Amino acid sequence: MSDTLKVVIIGGVAAGPKVAAKVVRLRPDAEVTVVEKGRFLSYAGCGLPYYISGVVAEQAELMSTPIGVLRDPGFFQKVKNVRVLNHTEAMEIDRKGKRIRIRNLEGNEESWLDYDKLVLATGANPVVPQIPGVNLPNIFSLHGVEDAEGIKTALAEGKARDVVIIGGGLIGIEVTEALVHKGCRVTVVEMLPQILRVLDEEMAALVAGHLESHGVKVLTGTRVESFEGNGRVTAVVTDKGSIPADMVIMAIGVRPNVHLAKDADLEIGQTGAIKVDTHMRTSDRDIYAAGDCVECVDIVTGQPCYVPLGSTANKQGRTAAMNVCNENDAFGGVLGSTVCKVFDYCVARTGLTEAAARESGYNVTIALVPAPDKAHFMPDAKSLLLKLVADSKTRKLLGAQATGPGDGDKRINVAAMAITAGMTVDDLANADLCYAPPFSPAMDNIITAANVTKNKLNGYMVGVSSAEVYQMLQEKKDFVFLDVRSQGEYDQVRLPGSTLIPLGALRSRLDELPKDKEIIAFCKISLRGYEAALILKAAGFEKVSVMDGGVAMWPYEKLQ
Amino acid sequence: MSDTLKVVIIGGVAAGPKVAAKVVRLRPDAEVTVVEKGRFLSYAGCGLPYYISGVVAEQAELMSTPIGVLRDPGFFQKVKNVRVLNHTEAMEIDRKGKRIRIRNLEGNEESWLDYDKLVLATGANPVVPQIPGVNLPNIFSLHGVEDAEGIKTALAEGKARDVVIIGGGLIGIEVTEALVHKGCRVTVVEMLPQILRVLDEEMAALVAGHLESHGVKVLTGTRVESFEGNGRVTAVVTDKGSIPADMVIMAIGVRPNVHLAKDADLEIGQTGAIKVDTHMRTSDRDIYAAGDCVECVDIVTGQPCYVPLGSTANKQGRTAAMNVCNENDAFGGVLGSTVCKVFDYCVARTGLTEAAARESGYNVTIALVPAPDKAHFMPDAKSLLLKLVADSKTRKLLGAQATGPGDGDKRINVAAMAITAGMTVDDLANADLCYAPPFSPAMDNIITAANVTKNKLNGYMVGVSSAEVYQMLQEKKDFVFLDVRSQGEYDQVRLPGSTLIPLGALRSRLDELPKDKEIIAFCKISLRGYEAALILKAAGFEKVSVMDGGVAMWPYEKLQ
Repeated sequence: MSDTLKVVIIGGVAAGPKVAAKVVRLRPDAEVTVVEKGRFLSYAGCGLPYYISGVVAEQAELMSTPIGVLRDPGFFQKVKNVRVLNHTEAMEIDRKGKRIRIRNLEGNEESWLDYDKLVLATGANPVVPQIPGVNLPNIFSLHGVEDAEGIKTALAEGKARDVVIIGGGLIGIEVTEALVHKGCRVTVVEMLPQILRVLDEEMAALVAGHLESHGVKVLTGTRVESFEGNGRVTAVVTDKGSIPADMVIMAIGVRPNVHLAKDADLEIGQTGAIKVDTHMRTSDRDIYAAGDCVECVDIVTGQPCYVPLGSTANKQGRTAAMNVCNENDAFGGVLGSTVCKVFDYCVARTGLTEAAARESGYNVTIALVPAPDKAHFMPDAKSLLLKLVADSKTRKLLGAQATGPGDGDKRINVAAMAITAGMTVDDLANADLCYAPPFSPAMDNIITAANVTKNKLNGYMVGVSSAEVYQMLQEKKDFVFLDVRSQGEYDQVRLPGSTLIPLGALRSRLDELPKDKEIIAFCKISLRGYEAALILKAAGFEKVSVMDGGVAMWPYEKLQ
Repeated sequence: MSDTLKVVIIGGVAAGPKVAAKVVRLRPDAEVTVVEKGRFLSYAGCGLPYYISGVVAEQAELMSTPIGVLRDPGFFQKVKNVRVLNHTEAMEIDRKGKRIRIRNLEGNEESWLDYDKLVLATGANPVVPQIPGVNLPNIFSLHGVEDAEGIKTALAEGKARDVVIIGGGLIGIEVTEALVHKGCRVTVVEMLPQILRVLDEEMAALVAGHLESHGVKVLTGTRVESFEGNGRVTAVVTDKGSIPADMVIMAIGVRPNVHLAKDADLEIGQTGAIKVDTHMRTSDRDIYAAGDCVECVDIVTGQPCYVPLGSTANKQGRTAAMNVCNENDAFGGVLGSTVCKVFDYCVARTGLTEAAARESGYNVTIALVPAPDKAHFMPDAKSLLLKLVADSKTRKLLGAQATGPGDGDKRINVAAMAITAGMTVDDLANADLCYAPPFSPAMDNIITAANVTKNKLNGYMVGVSSAEVYQMLQEKKDFVFLDVRSQGEYDQVRLPGSTLIPLGALRSRLDELPKDKEIIAFCKISLRGYEAALILKAAGFEKVSVMDGGVAMWPYEKLQ
């Protein structure tokens, strides 16, 4: 090894440039080279939907520093002292010789590049299933700047009126919003029974309803069989029929780009991504990896997971750089914290969903808590639905989800910190969070949600999900579906099969209710429903429960 | 004790109604009585500034449930089964007899009320110093609905054009904003050298500057000596001159209302508030207390503190109620987390300020980090300044502050959770927070702030505060004040005594800088300043530091 530390980084989009910048800060005399196959460097891939919608006016903004300097090879060389070889593909890692073989994609010349430390930031590739017709023009994925340009051009040419998005994940939904803003008629086709698998079913159903209220067609449980077209795509053929389309965007997901690592016999984890330790070191001690190509550890379960996110890539890049420079730094696990804008909704989650927690063997207690996101008397208070998932045994918080126009990610970030710290819902209920009427209720939504979870864990309250009640109604079970809202609320909207006794009148009308039947109480958000259940229990009614989340969390048909 | 649990609660504003509601939920057969001296119940005191400004249109909204039902004695009786005696003053606690003496303020009859469990929720009273003229009409405090009505009436009658706010704390500043919105010319008079002692000096100076940019006069280090007037107030006389005023609002602070507790020989803490254990139990095992009348424990220092806040009152009320009902529940300590809207600024803090941490004997490392609150390419990204305070020895986070138009409380809540969990800044830097461009940068502001703190703790970066640099400039010290921004940025605004070498040109212009002099680098936010310092250190410059927060955190005069 010469005196000068030679660091080679493969990949110039997110984690790669982060590693480069941090290495030269720590070792200004290091010789740092970034090898990037594409033309573009250091662009904000997560910003592409906002470039398509026009919220971000210029492509260059996605590739600039906060003060507007374009992060091109010249910038990296001059400002950062980092050499960038773009349009250059890394072909092979020679671990013994500590060098990589690269090919310049313009001239096709090959050469070798020596390294003391190599960092793989090779990212991920979109999954493009080999469905007949998938190569027709106007079928895009949304992975790079080129895809976004293709979509923008099709839009500008008026060739994208009917758009089908294949895949109802985060990216699919973000692009859906962008295209609706551009005047497209959008259909989302999802193979699974729900969109947004980052959420539980009932939360995802609320988001699907919100998409539909903006004119989007959401087809779940629908499999794409082929694409039709001549010259360009004209229809998407599914197992449930054909959908006209003059543009299709494939947003099925991504797979880690690991072929270089595999060819070099670096260890690949069970998720198919590169296995790294907390120092972001691969199975070769001179090779690190960071970003969408690596496997993470789930903080809650301790199990390997693959959660490619820009936030994680940046943190991992920093940690890799520190260790490349022999500064000890560790990256912990992930919670899959994520947020997505869906028109005026904020949709966010962290940790395990209820479904994932049950799959992992937890006995869970959940709470569904709708409430205004600010003091209720502030005119700009917006509704926010929170779901908490707690471990019934340890009372620890396992996960949280938010949806609605209210400020959800603020609460989900608090939940993420609580989960990371291993807090119980009792700890969370005591959290000292900022309060003033323009920012939150006196009892912040997440604290109220923690208290509802405590009530259930303590046995004060038995909750029934709207899905269970719906099932009971379908099966014509004999029970009292007790609405305790006011007459005025009831007149506006009511749930099928429900009986109204406003909470204020309940004590004086107890004799109208049968003591032998199951009673399921609810109100707008089920806080009054909870009070009703307590009054009924005190009066000797035994089979009393509360429908979680009330009317606000009822994703099925309502009567008006 | 009869079979029925008799719970008496003194105080009907915040903690009191919370206790009552929770007790009847847990024990629907309990006999719960609330004794309230005033006419109004369960009103949102924190909402009063927004009622004055007109953001909240009706007083009744502050006293209603989220679905618009007025929380009057009838509501409490009918819906909650809670008896409310308003216009009724608690005169004496007979601990032996387990009863309190009450007086009906309308008829002046006295009677005794038995209890099994007593809860003191007597709140706090505004501090009104006995300055000559303090009883003149149009001098208000802002503590109850009556004060707000008085202020509203004066405004409506056009009798409040020039308003002086005495006290630059949170309430004073909230009222200032409200009155500016109503067209008043407002002067804030603060005895201490800074407003908003919840913040450190330089953060408070930025808020003061923001107030001034909205036409508010901020007079710090100014003592009020008397009020002049005839029939109503016309001027506030201070040690620095007289200020014309046709309305004055005293917002000096509050003191816990403890006379009943004192008279009954209950233990009073060193802060002057009622001492309670984690169960909210006083020194009498049948008497609990909650809300603004009790002493809290500071989570960071473990020391007693007095931090009256509506958020805390609600949590304490819930815990007191649980324990009144023999359900074991504990309330932890507080961090003094708080947020305040100052026109379009969000001002927030949690934990210890730098000043408080130093006073408590900590050796601290701080970071001042300005950054956009969303991905910088999003057009609605707003600037946000964060300050972190860490323990240099343990690397634990001790406190955090935010100011600016950006989304500050979101980040301060994350810091509050980190402090509660005893996290180091290294832990915080790994936090898995929600990211999408409309919500945060890929590296959230609080994570970047944690990383800057890490850099300092690791010795990569030596920070100098703007106050220190300003002092050096005043003393005409010989150093290079190195601006590494672009020529364009420099032409717009520059700091006195600075020399420009843009970062991109620095490597080629090193010979222009003296190796023997101290060099203090900065840029807009001092990220480029940090890079410049690293380049200089690598090139053999030894006395190099970075001005924390750059131009964004410079509260002194700038040249244009």
